[in-house]
Amino acid sequence: MTAPQLGVCYYPEHWPESAWPAQASAMAALGIRLVRIAEFAWSRIEPQRDQFDWAWLDRACDTLADAGLSIILCTPSACPPKWLLDEWPEVYPVDASGQRRGFGSRRHYSFSSQRYRYEMRRITEAIGTRYAQHPAVVGWQTDNEYGCHETTRCYSDGTRTAFQNWLRTKYGHVDQLNAAWGTVFWSQEYPAFSAVELPNNTVTEANPAHWLDFMRFSSEAVVEFNAEQVDILRPRIRARWITHNFMGGSLDFDHFAVCKALDLATWDSYPLGFLDQFWFSSADKRRFRQLGHPDWSAFHHDLYYGVGRGRFGVMEQQPGPVNWAQHNAVPQPGAVRLWTHEAIAHGAEFVSYFRWRQLPFAQEQMHAGLMRVDGAPAPAAAEVAATAQEIEQLDSPERAASSVALVFDYASLWLCQIQPQADSYDPFECVFTWYSALRALGVDVDIVAPEAALDDYALVVLPCGVQSDAKLHDTQLLHTGQVVLGPRSGSKTPDYQIPANLAPGIWQQRIALKVTAVDSVRVDSPIDVVADQEDAFVARWLEHVDTDLDPLYRTVDGHGVCFENANTLYVNGWLSDALLQAVLERACARADVSTRRLPDAVRIRTRGHLHYVFNFSAAPELVRIDGAHCVLGSPTVGAGDVAVWSDHADR
Amino acid sequence: MTAPQLGVCYYPEHWPESAWPAQASAMAALGIRLVRIAEFAWSRIEPQRDQFDWAWLDRACDTLADAGLSIILCTPSACPPKWLLDEWPEVYPVDASGQRRGFGSRRHYSFSSQRYRYEMRRITEAIGTRYAQHPAVVGWQTDNEYGCHETTRCYSDGTRTAFQNWLRTKYGHVDQLNAAWGTVFWSQEYPAFSAVELPNNTVTEANPAHWLDFMRFSSEAVVEFNAEQVDILRPRIRARWITHNFMGGSLDFDHFAVCKALDLATWDSYPLGFLDQFWFSSADKRRFRQLGHPDWSAFHHDLYYGVGRGRFGVMEQQPGPVNWAQHNAVPQPGAVRLWTHEAIAHGAEFVSYFRWRQLPFAQEQMHAGLMRVDGAPAPAAAEVAATAQEIEQLDSPERAASSVALVFDYASLWLCQIQPQADSYDPFECVFTWYSALRALGVDVDIVAPEAALDDYALVVLPCGVQSDAKLHDTQLLHTGQVVLGPRSGSKTPDYQIPANLAPGIWQQRIALKVTAVDSVRVDSPIDVVADQEDAFVARWLEHVDTDLDPLYRTVDGHGVCFENANTLYVNGWLSDALLQAVLERACARADVSTRRLPDAVRIRTRGHLHYVFNFSAAPELVRIDGAHCVLGSPTVGAGDVAVWSDHADR
Amino acid sequence: MTAPQLGVCYYPEHWPESAWPAQASAMAALGIRLVRIAEFAWSRIEPQRDQFDWAWLDRACDTLADAGLSIILCTPSACPPKWLLDEWPEVYPVDASGQRRGFGSRRHYSFSSQRYRYEMRRITEAIGTRYAQHPAVVGWQTDNEYGCHETTRCYSDGTRTAFQNWLRTKYGHVDQLNAAWGTVFWSQEYPAFSAVELPNNTVTEANPAHWLDFMRFSSEAVVEFNAEQVDILRPRIRARWITHNFMGGSLDFDHFAVCKALDLATWDSYPLGFLDQFWFSSADKRRFRQLGHPDWSAFHHDLYYGVGRGRFGVMEQQPGPVNWAQHNAVPQPGAVRLWTHEAIAHGAEFVSYFRWRQLPFAQEQMHAGLMRVDGAPAPAAAEVAATAQEIEQLDSPERAASSVALVFDYASLWLCQIQPQADSYDPFECVFTWYSALRALGVDVDIVAPEAALDDYALVVLPCGVQSDAKLHDTQLLHTGQVVLGPRSGSKTPDYQIPANLAPGIWQQRIALKVTAVDSVRVDSPIDVVADQEDAFVARWLEHVDTDLDPLYRTVDGHGVCFENANTLYVNGWLSDALLQAVLERACARADVSTRRLPDAVRIRTRGHLHYVFNFSAAPELVRIDGAHCVLGSPTVGAGDVAVWSDHADR
Repeated sequence: MTAPQLGVCYYPEHWPESAWPAQASAMAALGIRLVRIAEFAWSRIEPQRDQFDWAWLDRACDTLADAGLSIILCTPSACPPKWLLDEWPEVYPVDASGQRRGFGSRRHYSFSSQRYRYEMRRITEAIGTRYAQHPAVVGWQTDNEYGCHETTRCYSDGTRTAFQNWLRTKYGHVDQLNAAWGTVFWSQEYPAFSAVELPNNTVTEANPAHWLDFMRFSSEAVVEFNAEQVDILRPRIRARWITHNFMGGSLDFDHFAVCKALDLATWDSYPLGFLDQFWFSSADKRRFRQLGHPDWSAFHHDLYYGVGRGRFGVMEQQPGPVNWAQHNAVPQPGAVRLWTHEAIAHGAEFVSYFRWRQLPFAQEQMHAGLMRVDGAPAPAAAEVAATAQEIEQLDSPERAASSVALVFDYASLWLCQIQPQADSYDPFECVFTWYSALRALGVDVDIVAPEAALDDYALVVLPCGVQSDAKLHDTQLLHTGQVVLGPRSGSKTPDYQIPANLAPGIWQQRIALKVTAVDSVRVDSPIDVVADQEDAFVARWLEHVDTDLDPLYRTVDGHGVCFENANTLYVNGWLSDALLQAVLERACARADVSTRRLPDAVRIRTRGHLHYVFNFSAAPELVRIDGAHCVLGSPTVGAGDVAVWSDHADR
Repeated sequence: MTAPQLGVCYYPEHWPESAWPAQASAMAALGIRLVRIAEFAWSRIEPQRDQFDWAWLDRACDTLADAGLSIILCTPSACPPKWLLDEWPEVYPVDASGQRRGFGSRRHYSFSSQRYRYEMRRITEAIGTRYAQHPAVVGWQTDNEYGCHETTRCYSDGTRTAFQNWLRTKYGHVDQLNAAWGTVFWSQEYPAFSAVELPNNTVTEANPAHWLDFMRFSSEAVVEFNAEQVDILRPRIRARWITHNFMGGSLDFDHFAVCKALDLATWDSYPLGFLDQFWFSSADKRRFRQLGHPDWSAFHHDLYYGVGRGRFGVMEQQPGPVNWAQHNAVPQPGAVRLWTHEAIAHGAEFVSYFRWRQLPFAQEQMHAGLMRVDGAPAPAAAEVAATAQEIEQLDSPERAASSVALVFDYASLWLCQIQPQADSYDPFECVFTWYSALRALGVDVDIVAPEAALDDYALVVLPCGVQSDAKLHDTQLLHTGQVVLGPRSGSKTPDYQIPANLAPGIWQQRIALKVTAVDSVRVDSPIDVVADQEDAFVARWLEHVDTDLDPLYRTVDGHGVCFENANTLYVNGWLSDALLQAVLERACARADVSTRRLPDAVRIRTRGHLHYVFNFSAAPELVRIDGAHCVLGSPTVGAGDVAVWSDHADR
Repeated sequence: MTAPQLGVCYYPEHWPESAWPAQASAMAALGIRLVRIAEFAWSRIEPQRDQFDWAWLDRACDTLADAGLSIILCTPSACPPKWLLDEWPEVYPVDASGQRRGFGSRRHYSFSSQRYRYEMRRITEAIGTRYAQHPAVVGWQTDNEYGCHETTRCYSDGTRTAFQNWLRTKYGHVDQLNAAWGTVFWSQEYPAFSAVELPNNTVTEANPAHWLDFMRFSSEAVVEFNAEQVDILRPRIRARWITHNFMGGSLDFDHFAVCKALDLATWDSYPLGFLDQFWFSSADKRRFRQLGHPDWSAFHHDLYYGVGRGRFGVMEQQPGPVNWAQHNAVPQPGAVRLWTHEAIAHGAEFVSYFRWRQLPFAQEQMHAGLMRVDGAPAPAAAEVAATAQEIEQLDSPERAASSVALVFDYASLWLCQIQPQADSYDPFECVFTWYSALRALGVDVDIVAPEAALDDYALVVLPCGVQSDAKLHDTQLLHTGQVVLGPRSGSKTPDYQIPANLAPGIWQQRIALKVTAVDSVRVDSPIDVVADQEDAFVARWLEHVDTDLDPLYRTVDGHGVCFENANTLYVNGWLSDALLQAVLERACARADVSTRRLPDAVRIRTRGHLHYVFNFSAAPELVRIDGAHCVLGSPTVGAGDVAVWSDHADR
């Protein structure tokens, strides 16, 4: 593998041309090799319809090239200019309440607008044709952060028509739709596809199958939108790669499906913003406020390694405080270095910082860059320069496959979101909790799509595999290694129905049990579990199970918890962290996956012969890697610091 | 009285016809005698306008009849089919924000739509004519759960016109409206009835009299809607009864008024769903999560006994976890039996479970039935069978009138909701708290309408009798027994004005005091009361009172609390539970109503010569009934268990 | 100065004419001298277009005059009548979600409606002409509580057009707007002024400069609206004064700017309602529930003293419980007297109670008056009468300038509201906290506009001076006394950009430091500060500062906190109360402003030779004023009581 590179996101149109050469030189001097540009530049590229101004962008590309930098070029489709919207107001998205969302920020388009599809293809073709063979351009990014700001799903009239057409294609005859959705319930039967409405603004909740199809349709619209751009770029740019920068914590469309058209996946990594915005406890928000949660970035690295079929990068790495969370902390000194090494430890091909220089104006003026508003280096700049040198000194081995695969199924998350049955059941939190428990045991994890090949994994875990779909799960069902199934596994057919043989549906082929009832349990009413561990309990979710198997545990009132046969373990509830860790430790042991209870908030990630140790805690921790020696840092890893160990004798 | 029966809600259209006979047999085998059908079947009865398909429903009725089951038939008006809405979009309701509520769930109609009234009468006439004389049909249900999903009040243009007409009828001349509402305030005077808007979307709160009239108008629209169905059914079905299944915790329309057209009241009882959704404390939600609050079902039984003028049943009884609360617990083993006996103890003529078999598809797929999705019996089935036998073994005495009446006035609740004056003042919670205090004292309570005859009651309590309306209250004012008045009693005229002689208005004829100010007190700022009881305080509400009477108590800063003369007690604040119980105990004593401080979470209900003991606590409790002997269970009642004692020597 | 007067708000149209003479006499008997009328009387003055009925108002004025009372007359523009709205629905305001706000309460007009401007001028001219020379009328009030119920900003089509015109005037060419807003960011460039939308309903947040201009435009619309009324009244009424009654806690428009057209400022003082509605802690809400926060009214008195350029009054003083807060407490006995003396201590020319008599009907029927609904005196009446006599017995010295000025800049608050960067950063709370800390030190404070002359102040504090605008701040920059700058000072240019030299922008002329990063800190994650004080910490906000100055303090992790040179102190974070008090105490010492740590919840305010002591605590406090003697009350001031001390030997 070539050595990982550092990059930066840059907006030449924000700065006077006279400043460009010095900016480019400064980038190179920091050790930066990749520069992403043109992301939101449509209004400068085409100030009026069909009046293209390429000159400035030509000069920007040449300036960067002259400094020895490589360019990642973007299609600017995330921000159509005002003149386009004024011509075609039907492009605007509509929110779930029925309100049109207007101009004045970004992503003001509906994925289902055929008019916008045309305009998007037109600008993609224009920029793609212009820079197809520019020698400095090494790759392309489509659009920006699909789905951000809840834009995957649109509720416009145009979307309704597109949805009806999608249903017509899927079902052929409306009777098939009525059967699949079970519209006989509540007299919801549709006389024709053209009579189907969008599922918002119903009197009480809409049919879950209706929602599921709408979510699938919306996800596929993103897939199509992206593929249309790739189809235009591909023949023009030939060997250059194409990626998209997925947003962290984004779940509304299937990233695996979108990325099929792409060469590699990238994602946008904002550890502190995400910590503040997501479900983490107050204690975690306090404890990790300047470093981020120890597993958040790692989870996404592993996810996009899977989404990118083994190729991924970080397109936007937080370099300082951001502007968009409820509270925006300053990263701890060393945090930017830690995050960079962490990405590389997980296999990132590049880490690109957002952004070169903090902008004094507009929405993101409080979002830090590597350079301050006044042009002086921000604290991150020195960390980047130092990290660049460290990366150079380290080997660049390939990331090897892990022994453990975690199956991540976007549609299963949607299934839970549509009918949570317990308000406290966040399916993404559920998946993350399982990932986190494995990581605290020192285990490296691959995150894979539902249809991924699993032969090489000793242990496969499905924390949220809700779909009971034989087509999807063949590889899982036949997997000869250990499989651990989470609650709700196989509990719904692809049509959002309960399987005729009850949950876990097709999984009964692997383990003989039936879920006969679900007890959804308020977080403040946990049910204690008899176990050796302290803090062993179930909350949020407990399935009552009918089986001849003996449970691994029982609740204090006698319900079985966790059932196991030779190579399958079924976890029938939302376990407390301590109990979950014990269960997964047991599963690892049965799969001959070695585990190690790491010091709290310490994580290890292996990449080839290198072992990275990251300390997210507030105090130094001594961590040794048996049979290896330190090539960066030292065995006692300071707070927020990194050590790298090598299996190789030489370095 | 004939023995109480068990029933079940059944949707033959959800299952293949071939399964019907076995299902019917299985119902009968469990001890079920009544089956409710056709509730949401409009789209199957009339798949296109004027194309009726009766064949399947004929066969369903015959199949049930053949199994010896009796049928409750429904008018399917809660779910008009899509073709109807496509023809007449004006039928859709509009929410308070002005957004049209669409198709895709249920109750998608406006009570004020004249077009929908026509369509509703048309389908009622069709089904009523078809099955008027079917020998197995013993009763009818109109629509389903009027008002559920906040559908009583609609804000459409059609509703505005209907409201204007209603006002024209009520006031005759707009000057009368202006005077009644006091529109001289803030220059709100209306030049004509046609200028009156609906009270939503005003800049700040609308005139309370405007809201009150709108709430009355909306309630009367439900009354009319229901009466129109009854008027069609009655001449056709003759001796068969007609009911409606009211939803628990539903307050937006006057159930007494709707039920005047009906023969008996039924309600839908979901003890665990309601516990999760209503105002109960976290401690109560934890403690009672698998049994429900000890007084919730009892309250509703007593309410619908009153609404049904002595005749009521439970049309939908929760048999397992439901799907619609924030968390949906599995009932404790025995809970379904307890709930069934409890309904009968309060006088229910039948208890019908919702539903026969859990459905694998659509919105309520996570709502349990007596049968599981796979057709096997759910845990409740065995409880139902056992309970059926127990019922058979017990006598079936009539419910006798209680010594204590609690007056329940829907309009008084609306008056409080419109201007709570303290955000923490939930009038329904207030009423419930009084009911609960009496029940914890072992007292049986009748819940009666404001205009009910009271001669036979030794004690009448009005926890929320806000209207100061001589017309309504004659029987109360002249009642020779004890009367206990809650805070806010008589504080508003029917036009939503403060009485000229101040609160408690007309009640000053019974007790000489005036409310001169209201202190609305945050829950976290309780005012201690000097009393023998522990935990004696006032919060949320304290009226300053001008009177020559000595108060029963004083706050620590000297305000009088509770005033009494020979036969009237005025409670001028929201008392702590302990204080309220002491006050009501005193009132009972003065009325010669015997009380008994029951063990916590134990309740007793007497029906004729039978005394039912219910234990909602987590541990067994020993409870004896003097002069009676156990005919079911034993004196020590287990957690979630029931005992029945008889005054009769023989059984 | 003439002695302060007491007044009352009165609505003769609410009562029968026959009652007026007795009401007027009763007012006079209580010691009331001023009566405000006609505030919401449009529908009675002009029941139909151009049909004026002056007779009743003539008689009302004459009745009051006959009782020796002076009249404050209002323009009734806050409540246009229904016939006007029916003619011109475009007058209705539209809320930020795009929903039209309707008729049925008050303030149902858009400030930007040209049609409403015309109608407002028409009614102003009519009433102004009619009563211009009425001998009893001493002053006028325009409209009522501009901006109340979030009515400053409107999102109608008419407003969009007006906003576009405003931008055209401000920027001349759209390129200037694009440059100022930085619309190159996210391709937001506008091709023309007519293409600019309102900033609501964007996909994610709109450009902050867009919001800021919209807020300025909206504020200026209020200024214009008010000035148009004044321009009509002024030539007619000549020497009589004109005021407006500003609402407490109202921030959406610039009160200084509106008041420029007026002769004096008045405000509406509801200490208990505000305590319940604003950000105060639960502990404060409990502790002060019957007296209000010790600094809330004082803050507003000092603010409107500034807004009114030294002349202010209280137009509406709460006399008992109100109806509009979440909880509405009864004032403590003596509270109305305390509030009245407090206003006068701060320099009020009059204190007018809202309202004469509690109304039995309409929205405010639960809002107390001096008289009860039944016409008997409410408890406040006796307090008013007693206070009137006390005022008469006291001298009436002028309020002198204080030594300390607090600069209050509405636009700076808007800047923070648009981009809080920390959700917990409420700029009004920030300002209030600083004011409160000074007051607890016994310091009298003038609250002044950004452009105010500062020469006479020994100490100037700017807790929220976010704008870095040389034009505005000249007097501040050149101030030779001490200046204390709060966090965010000078952090934004007038175009909502970060200054090229970073924050604190122009303030770097006074103190050599740069803010290099902002750490926005969750309230539950305070950062401890090494200091002598207990409870010394920073939360919500901490700026990292680049400077050669030594900080006064350091956080435990080494960041500097508070920087100082000869006459400037920069506070770079949101300090804990204890730390803020220590810092301001130090600043006072350096400015030779004497301080005194007052007993908790005791406040002192000096007016000429009189020193008022107010005790907001629950227990008596002994407070002596050196060199003065008690002329009202005694040195030990009871809970809720007042003492007045005089420097003069005689009284």
